[in-house]
Amino acid sequence: MQRLTVAKPSSLRPRVVFSGIQPTGVPHLGNYVGALRQWVNLQRDEQPSTKLIYSIVDLHAITVPQKPETLRQRKREVLAALLAIGLDPERCTIFYQSSVPAHSELMWILACTASVGYLSRMTQWKSKLSLASSSTLENKSVGSRLKLGLFSYPVLQAADILVHRATHVPVGHDQQQHLEFARECVTNFNHAYGNHLVHPETIVSPAQRIMSLTEPTSKMSKSHEAQRSRILITDSPQDIRSKIATALTDSTPGISYDPATRPGISNLLEIFSVFDTEGRNPAQLAQAYADASPKIFKEAVADALLTGLQGIRDRYLDLSANDSYLDKIEQHGARKAQESAKETMDIVKTAVGL
Amino acid sequence: MQRLTVAKPSSLRPRVVFSGIQPTGVPHLGNYVGALRQWVNLQRDEQPSTKLIYSIVDLHAITVPQKPETLRQRKREVLAALLAIGLDPERCTIFYQSSVPAHSELMWILACTASVGYLSRMTQWKSKLSLASSSTLENKSVGSRLKLGLFSYPVLQAADILVHRATHVPVGHDQQQHLEFARECVTNFNHAYGNHLVHPETIVSPAQRIMSLTEPTSKMSKSHEAQRSRILITDSPQDIRSKIATALTDSTPGISYDPATRPGISNLLEIFSVFDTEGRNPAQLAQAYADASPKIFKEAVADALLTGLQGIRDRYLDLSANDSYLDKIEQHGARKAQESAKETMDIVKTAVGL
Repeated sequence: MQRLTVAKPSSLRPRVVFSGIQPTGVPHLGNYVGALRQWVNLQRDEQPSTKLIYSIVDLHAITVPQKPETLRQRKREVLAALLAIGLDPERCTIFYQSSVPAHSELMWILACTASVGYLSRMTQWKSKLSLASSSTLENKSVGSRLKLGLFSYPVLQAADILVHRATHVPVGHDQQQHLEFARECVTNFNHAYGNHLVHPETIVSPAQRIMSLTEPTSKMSKSHEAQRSRILITDSPQDIRSKIATALTDSTPGISYDPATRPGISNLLEIFSVFDTEGRNPAQLAQAYADASPKIFKEAVADALLTGLQGIRDRYLDLSANDSYLDKIEQHGARKAQESAKETMDIVKTAVGL
Repeated sequence: MQRLTVAKPSSLRPRVVFSGIQPTGVPHLGNYVGALRQWVNLQRDEQPSTKLIYSIVDLHAITVPQKPETLRQRKREVLAALLAIGLDPERCTIFYQSSVPAHSELMWILACTASVGYLSRMTQWKSKLSLASSSTLENKSVGSRLKLGLFSYPVLQAADILVHRATHVPVGHDQQQHLEFARECVTNFNHAYGNHLVHPETIVSPAQRIMSLTEPTSKMSKSHEAQRSRILITDSPQDIRSKIATALTDSTPGISYDPATRPGISNLLEIFSVFDTEGRNPAQLAQAYADASPKIFKEAVADALLTGLQGIRDRYLDLSANDSYLDKIEQHGARKAQESAKETMDIVKTAVGL
């Protein structure tokens, strides 16, 4: 006698959007424009019945060495930043991954039908260890340096998505392979135990990549040494002005939009466009500032950015000073995420016979 | 500011014994004599302050394919059998592994410092896939057949032990490698995060191996096809008589104890000795029955066994008919195990910065 809950056909289920962010501290402009802004927009664009689930993935963070005190602090910074950019903790579920044991539980269950061969062909563990993409496990020094956590990380990432029965996952280009793997995990599980897990689809974002201010042919990144290379969404007005003023451009006179030949100027135009109150695109802004000097143009970019980020910075500073409110938000999110995960785990455990 | 709980020196901590049993249904005589009997004896021999923690490891069971309904039933059978042999659910903590999410949670955390190279050299995944012990992950067909669950199973087993801060683990010879790996996990974790996990020691049991009745040079085993090859601890008197009567012996006249040349007779003497009310060892029993016919000898073995197992069988039948009592025991054990695991997880999560 099977006590199985039959999954509803997908057309009857409300949409569930899941996305995660690494706890690397206050997000920079690249994170904001590339991903977080979209999280906020989904609050406006999705039906009220759509569940929006956003996780601060601290269990993923520990696949590479972390200082405990720093990790703890950065988690908190990310939480405050998510609220500061306008995520509504009532509308969304915002939580630390490690507060929901079901992520680890489902990971183990998925691991039992996930192939080691597939994982060994994935690229992320190789790039994190700075190995060639042709590297294999047979290499002895690889085997001793590679930790199981890093190697099996895509399975936990699959569990993150599947434990909330996510139907849609906003992903950047570099995560496509991992979403494909999550779909493979669904296929393996459903083949073994029946049609219980949901195949997630991607939401492809209108990929707007913000580049480094000091090296505008590379993405803006947390790992770049130079602080001036990135703008944090909570940077002070002085910091923003100074970073934009010293952003690397070129010696061509005037302003024009051409990412290939003028990466620095074009990147500033992209940034400008994100925060332009008139909603002009980079090409339109280039026209408007065609004859401006670099100095005048940069001041206009900084002004737009300052105005656009002012509210975020103010809210962030308020939130950071309010520990007990953040505690409450953290607990509230954990509870909501635990409930969401429990629904799936009840179905999964029954299906598996646990 | 580290909010760490400093671990007490081991001399001040009470002993914690942890052991697990696979949910393969009612245990046979080999399980009972080789392991379970010792679990019962520890209730008598250990100080009252010693924690005794026994887990029915259903998460391990799913590293190989399982029928859900069968798994569910076998878990229940094992639970009833553990109570039937005399484990006291107040004195011990008896629980299903999957009822305590902390096992999976700690597994992930340990995985982040556990080396893939070490795991790839372990033997169990090879033997479960019937591969030569020289097999490596580089072999393509190995990679596709090998599931991550089976490959990383020793890490979950380490988590089982470490999450309860077990100081002592009764292990058979075939589990020595896994306990060594658990100690390695402690070393890795403590090296990265400070001295928080406890190195478990082995309790080596007076290894008494019960052999198959139909093939007395192999261990008695659940996986042997012939039901007659093993005696379940809940077998009916008729079944026991008939299985012992047809046990494979030899044509040498008389009874003597010599496992090498007379494996069948010697195995029966071992079994006899376990249940002999006068406490005689196999050699003494061989002397006492030196001139007996095989038939007379086997009847004496069956009599001893019947008497020895009678109480277990009766209690098992009672318990199996009492679903609500088993439910209560299951919940009670889960709660106690969750509390025990929580103590460790609080320390671990703080140490890691989660």
